[in-house]
Amino acid sequence: MKKRVVLVGMGFGGIHAARVLAGKGLDVILVDRNNYHLFQPLLYQVATAGLEQESIAHSVRAMARSWPGTRFQLAEATGIDFASHDLLTNTGPIHYDYLVIGAGSVTNYFGLTSVERNAFDLKELSDAETLRNHILTAFERAVIEPDPARQRALMTFVIVGGGPTGVEFSGALVELVHFVLAKDYPELKTQAARVVLIEATDELLVAMPESQRMYTLNKLRSMSVEVLLNARVVDAGPEQVILHDGAVIPAHTLFWSAGVKAAPLAATLDTPPMAAGRIPVEPDLTLPGHSEVYVIGDMAFLKQDSSVLPMTAPVAMQMGIYAGNAILAREGGRTPSPFRYRDKGTMATIGRNAAVASAFGMNFRGYFAWLVWLLLHLYYLIGFRNRIVVMLNWVWYYWYHERQVRLITKRETGQEL
Amino acid sequence: MKKRVVLVGMGFGGIHAARVLAGKGLDVILVDRNNYHLFQPLLYQVATAGLEQESIAHSVRAMARSWPGTRFQLAEATGIDFASHDLLTNTGPIHYDYLVIGAGSVTNYFGLTSVERNAFDLKELSDAETLRNHILTAFERAVIEPDPARQRALMTFVIVGGGPTGVEFSGALVELVHFVLAKDYPELKTQAARVVLIEATDELLVAMPESQRMYTLNKLRSMSVEVLLNARVVDAGPEQVILHDGAVIPAHTLFWSAGVKAAPLAATLDTPPMAAGRIPVEPDLTLPGHSEVYVIGDMAFLKQDSSVLPMTAPVAMQMGIYAGNAILAREGGRTPSPFRYRDKGTMATIGRNAAVASAFGMNFRGYFAWLVWLLLHLYYLIGFRNRIVVMLNWVWYYWYHERQVRLITKRETGQEL
Repeated sequence: MKKRVVLVGMGFGGIHAARVLAGKGLDVILVDRNNYHLFQPLLYQVATAGLEQESIAHSVRAMARSWPGTRFQLAEATGIDFASHDLLTNTGPIHYDYLVIGAGSVTNYFGLTSVERNAFDLKELSDAETLRNHILTAFERAVIEPDPARQRALMTFVIVGGGPTGVEFSGALVELVHFVLAKDYPELKTQAARVVLIEATDELLVAMPESQRMYTLNKLRSMSVEVLLNARVVDAGPEQVILHDGAVIPAHTLFWSAGVKAAPLAATLDTPPMAAGRIPVEPDLTLPGHSEVYVIGDMAFLKQDSSVLPMTAPVAMQMGIYAGNAILAREGGRTPSPFRYRDKGTMATIGRNAAVASAFGMNFRGYFAWLVWLLLHLYYLIGFRNRIVVMLNWVWYYWYHERQVRLITKRETGQEL
Repeated sequence: MKKRVVLVGMGFGGIHAARVLAGKGLDVILVDRNNYHLFQPLLYQVATAGLEQESIAHSVRAMARSWPGTRFQLAEATGIDFASHDLLTNTGPIHYDYLVIGAGSVTNYFGLTSVERNAFDLKELSDAETLRNHILTAFERAVIEPDPARQRALMTFVIVGGGPTGVEFSGALVELVHFVLAKDYPELKTQAARVVLIEATDELLVAMPESQRMYTLNKLRSMSVEVLLNARVVDAGPEQVILHDGAVIPAHTLFWSAGVKAAPLAATLDTPPMAAGRIPVEPDLTLPGHSEVYVIGDMAFLKQDSSVLPMTAPVAMQMGIYAGNAILAREGGRTPSPFRYRDKGTMATIGRNAAVASAFGMNFRGYFAWLVWLLLHLYYLIGFRNRIVVMLNWVWYYWYHERQVRLITKRETGQEL
């Protein structure tokens, strides 16, 4: 009887674990509530009309075809029965010998309920389509809005959080408005549109070296993004955002990228969670007291050299590969050495020809960093056809300043237009 | 003061009228409830995971950029005030000197309410995505269904209507199942899947010559589509379809392409509608008694050589061009000659290397017709980038038997999985 490995979550960690485990004589079951792997780092480009949603998702069954011994089950994990070794799901229990949990993270609003009610975020594929529809609908409404103040609020976008997502989304959005929508809406004064980026600390991209942070700030401001540092959003309504000092920004769109926390599945585990709901794991990524259960990616809380590993795609990938190899080692009678994250650097794109990248103690900026960013993202994108379509969109945008996916595919509910 | 032409509906008729009217010194307002032109003939390929939805839609504002004197307004037309010359919309009235109405058609269920409640159709972009999600979800459910009868019903697809849409959708669906899903779902006996095409008359593609109809029927049957002729659906539930003779087909999916009728806007006009809710028009396509109002496309009821013009894209395009030119002629003091439809032929694709085309008294079948079908559809598709993406998908499918968009992008509501 083959031993069974159940992988929960087909994010960066899950697919890398699956690749390692495929064809090794194990029965590997891949579980996700979606039937696709989502390339989250490009969600913001779907939201800003640069890419079609299908180009950043890839069918898990298509991948599993080339992974011998794996099969996929569409299901949402709801808990774990540690005694009977069963993963509990909405389609029934799945027995495991080894379990690898990488269910990822959700947006963290830190209890700001009015913000949660009114803000958009980018975690799921449908979030990106919803946000794109909302942005384009806001401009359509602005066309027919007679009140200049309300018209400006319709064209005002507040983005909270100066991490990579906030920076990348701000840059992509301001370019969408100035390069593309300015031509689409000749009847609107689109130069009156506002993209406001709000960061609680005094720096953007805190994980980056000082020189990169300064470059990013200056670049964004030169692109006319209004960057507010040391500012916090404390309250929000459908048409306004309120800051810590009482300042009110009339804005029809609020985007939140100021925090994430472990997926709700984490709360069902045996182990009490740490900050952001993450699960503390042993140095070999197993759950304390359950050496057959691995926790990887955003859900795992692990310190290395006294700092906690960040909730990023590279960490998830390396953890996935590690967990796969650790299981193979144990099946081969060997004891795996502890997990160690190798930091290969961080990067963020700001706009056309402008990105920052820090790797191997070196800092790159501008055109070269931007090119490296493009190539690395194409490399990690799953599916050859997806790479072609994404590259095609990028070339198009580069040459023609055109973003083709300016479609309002769903009408917003409960509103006249 | 420029005279104003208001065009309602950015389908095939509307965009062709807009092209003719652009840059001729008129104020042209384009009205649609969607911000895109939809290439309806390829909806079935979106529904069968062959194309991403964005590739068959094109932003009206992007088109309007190259049409001088036109502007777009996102609005839903609700009626017409003939006395004041106002188009009534959900965003307020729009005054017109000339009005061109091409709001298209909706699905006609002929009063079969149980069918309407349970069937899918393909008229809007979102219909195609919904249907694709439903088809793929049915296979995911089949995987975990222990009852063989229910499992087979989950893999049974009943398609009603043997016109071009029914034929093309049947062929594309059976190929999806046998070429693609058979590999995706090794745990399922996909050869047990059923695609049943039901036609009320004794022929498929009635508009085609006899030899083409026979070829289509034989080809579909050789692809293992079960074609039932002289059969009618009279009732339906979520898991079954009932025929006129009482026969029950256990089926989780029912697709209806057995009829269309004029869009609801037709009912708000002065003129009592004819069959399928269509509006009888004068030989110059104007509304009787309102020579400044044109009705084009599926909504228009016009006899030519004693037969009524069909509700097809070529008729709509020619009517749009005619209406544009007629307005220009009248503005130039000339009297337009009556509209005359030039039938350039009809075609339908059945599957890989297999299509039928009849034009200029000649009949083409098989590979050549299929190639012509591909090229003509690429030609009429709007947007250069869309053509590239669609061609890329077709080439991919042709070489690799792969349809890339096998994504369940929305979970179905009210159901466990």
